[in-house]
Amino acid sequence: MKVEIIKEVREHQPLIHHITNQVVMNFSANGLLSFGASPVMAKAQEEAAEMASHADGLLLNIGTLTSGDLEAMIAAGKAANQIGIPVVLDPVGAAATTWRSQAVKKILAEVHPSAIKGNAGEMAHLVNIPWETKGVDSTGEGNTENIAAQVADTYDTTAIVTGKKDIICQGNRIIENNTGDPYLSKLTGAGCLLGSILAACLTTGHSADQQALAAVNFYGLAAEYAADSPDVKGPGTFMSRFIDALSKDPAKLNRRDIDE
Amino acid sequence: MKVEIIKEVREHQPLIHHITNQVVMNFSANGLLSFGASPVMAKAQEEAAEMASHADGLLLNIGTLTSGDLEAMIAAGKAANQIGIPVVLDPVGAAATTWRSQAVKKILAEVHPSAIKGNAGEMAHLVNIPWETKGVDSTGEGNTENIAAQVADTYDTTAIVTGKKDIICQGNRIIENNTGDPYLSKLTGAGCLLGSILAACLTTGHSADQQALAAVNFYGLAAEYAADSPDVKGPGTFMSRFIDALSKDPAKLNRRDIDE
Amino acid sequence: MKVEIIKEVREHQPLIHHITNQVVMNFSANGLLSFGASPVMAKAQEEAAEMASHADGLLLNIGTLTSGDLEAMIAAGKAANQIGIPVVLDPVGAAATTWRSQAVKKILAEVHPSAIKGNAGEMAHLVNIPWETKGVDSTGEGNTENIAAQVADTYDTTAIVTGKKDIICQGNRIIENNTGDPYLSKLTGAGCLLGSILAACLTTGHSADQQALAAVNFYGLAAEYAADSPDVKGPGTFMSRFIDALSKDPAKLNRRDIDE
Repeated sequence: MKVEIIKEVREHQPLIHHITNQVVMNFSANGLLSFGASPVMAKAQEEAAEMASHADGLLLNIGTLTSGDLEAMIAAGKAANQIGIPVVLDPVGAAATTWRSQAVKKILAEVHPSAIKGNAGEMAHLVNIPWETKGVDSTGEGNTENIAAQVADTYDTTAIVTGKKDIICQGNRIIENNTGDPYLSKLTGAGCLLGSILAACLTTGHSADQQALAAVNFYGLAAEYAADSPDVKGPGTFMSRFIDALSKDPAKLNRRDIDE
Repeated sequence: MKVEIIKEVREHQPLIHHITNQVVMNFSANGLLSFGASPVMAKAQEEAAEMASHADGLLLNIGTLTSGDLEAMIAAGKAANQIGIPVVLDPVGAAATTWRSQAVKKILAEVHPSAIKGNAGEMAHLVNIPWETKGVDSTGEGNTENIAAQVADTYDTTAIVTGKKDIICQGNRIIENNTGDPYLSKLTGAGCLLGSILAACLTTGHSADQQALAAVNFYGLAAEYAADSPDVKGPGTFMSRFIDALSKDPAKLNRRDIDE
Repeated sequence: MKVEIIKEVREHQPLIHHITNQVVMNFSANGLLSFGASPVMAKAQEEAAEMASHADGLLLNIGTLTSGDLEAMIAAGKAANQIGIPVVLDPVGAAATTWRSQAVKKILAEVHPSAIKGNAGEMAHLVNIPWETKGVDSTGEGNTENIAAQVADTYDTTAIVTGKKDIICQGNRIIENNTGDPYLSKLTGAGCLLGSILAACLTTGHSADQQALAAVNFYGLAAEYAADSPDVKGPGTFMSRFIDALSKDPAKLNRRDIDE
């Protein structure tokens, strides 16, 4: 991981505009603040594009999408594309219903995302690869490198397939990441907050594959660090410690030194 | 409590579709995940019924109801009834305004709930028994067994009246539950999350009264266990520990053994 | 600080109706409950006015405003004005977009707030003083006493400009408050929850400037108390401890005695 990417985020505190799902708004905002960037969340169609035009990055997450949100996302996404700030798309539960599937395709027809991040089921759905899902979770097994490569190619984007092993694909490069902790699967919005962190890293002056790697690698290290705390006794105490960990120096997380 | 009910939930990790209030979405999702089931939350009218048709149970909670939510709840509720999965109705603040009162009656006219869970004020309102309320809280006193019996009879359902003493009524059976902790009254959405846990327990292969008892009994034990932790100094630290406790083995909670 | 104000809130547990932003609903409800008042949150246009008419105070926060929310806020605000309960307006990000700016002016044209609370950028915007902002944050520097005085005069209200130093202006009186902790700036909704606490304090029988001072002074002391806890290792663990601290006796916070 290039630690300069994390440092740059903290120096510039990029403003990341979110149109995201209602379940994770508070968690995403607190996690991104702790990491060192500035969240803003606005979904009225009257202001979504203007807010995006003042921001350094944009996150679109369809977790609790409504038809009004969809219009706001497209307006904000177009504004972001126009001024050239990074756009992250998180196609939460894309395969779960016909409406979500159509909505995410409508977004992709009108907005060009710098990165698309999702679990294998969501990403597979975007390139018509059959995959087992349950609600917004991915339960299938198979070749996630192929999924990442196809998403990256089809949408001319950086693709990040999250899971026990994260796969990043940018152009012809495939990078694997193995940091993380099982507690993340017990935390609602763990994937959603990663989208926010990713958007912040994409505002820095590095290559997209390194920015994506910095985001997922740091995120996983923070989870490992938090899980190692003797005060963590379950998912509730893990959540607090994980938000703490997102504020730490990457070097500290690497040492997994939990004495403070 | 039949501990097999809790075990079955954890084995099958039922997918519970929520159309619930915005205040508690994150807390409910994290609490239900910790307990061992899978939450999904989707409220667009375009997908609410389809999402319910893929789920193992449905929770309808009117805490921050809008007219759009109401349509989505009725569509999801009808879909759930059609495929035969359990539906839990939580009539939050039913007595607080004319609109809520009418909305909950509209739901009950179109959807058959497997269980209705609420505080005494909410449940009394459903059967036209006068009761003192304040906002979404119940402040009156009286015969809660009678309220539970009338709700169960009127709506042909399992009725759960929550409070210091919880009353479950199913058919002619009345069961009382006394587990719980005063901290629950300082935790926003404590009642709402119980609705999610209840929906998960109703997906198992046991009688409805035993499923309801398992949910409220386990929930109260988890609260007692969390409150006993030496690290709990107020409602904020209680919340984390309570989410932790929902992941524990029922036997562990019964022993109230907090050394870990 | 007049500690009687805090005591009165806890004795009467005033019901505070919120039409607030989706990011902070859970945090605001839990913080206000811990403090000793009762939150209720309802935003359907069909019930917003009726809910306000049953409440002891009203909080309007435009953080994630939609056009539907705006109508509900105006209806609730008018109902609150009519029955004479205090109304707190929190003009979150008022300067961030044209739509927010117009929306807050529409509210102020139709509803008379007892108090307006915001950061310097938001408050300056209400009286057309140029000020640097970033998203919903205030980044400028200058004379905040002048801003408070102009807001108080223009809108015939109690003005509270929050920041490292909080400025309260009521009539010709200016009061300064210096309690607080840098962790508050790492906590999403720290300003929003202060609005809820302020609304609760305004329901007591004291002068508005003393009520406002009690709210901001106590809030800052609670933050200092929480930050002093040896268990706080970052913004996540701070949040839990801060909610705990809001339930404490003011005298205890003043002593900054963290042994419990």
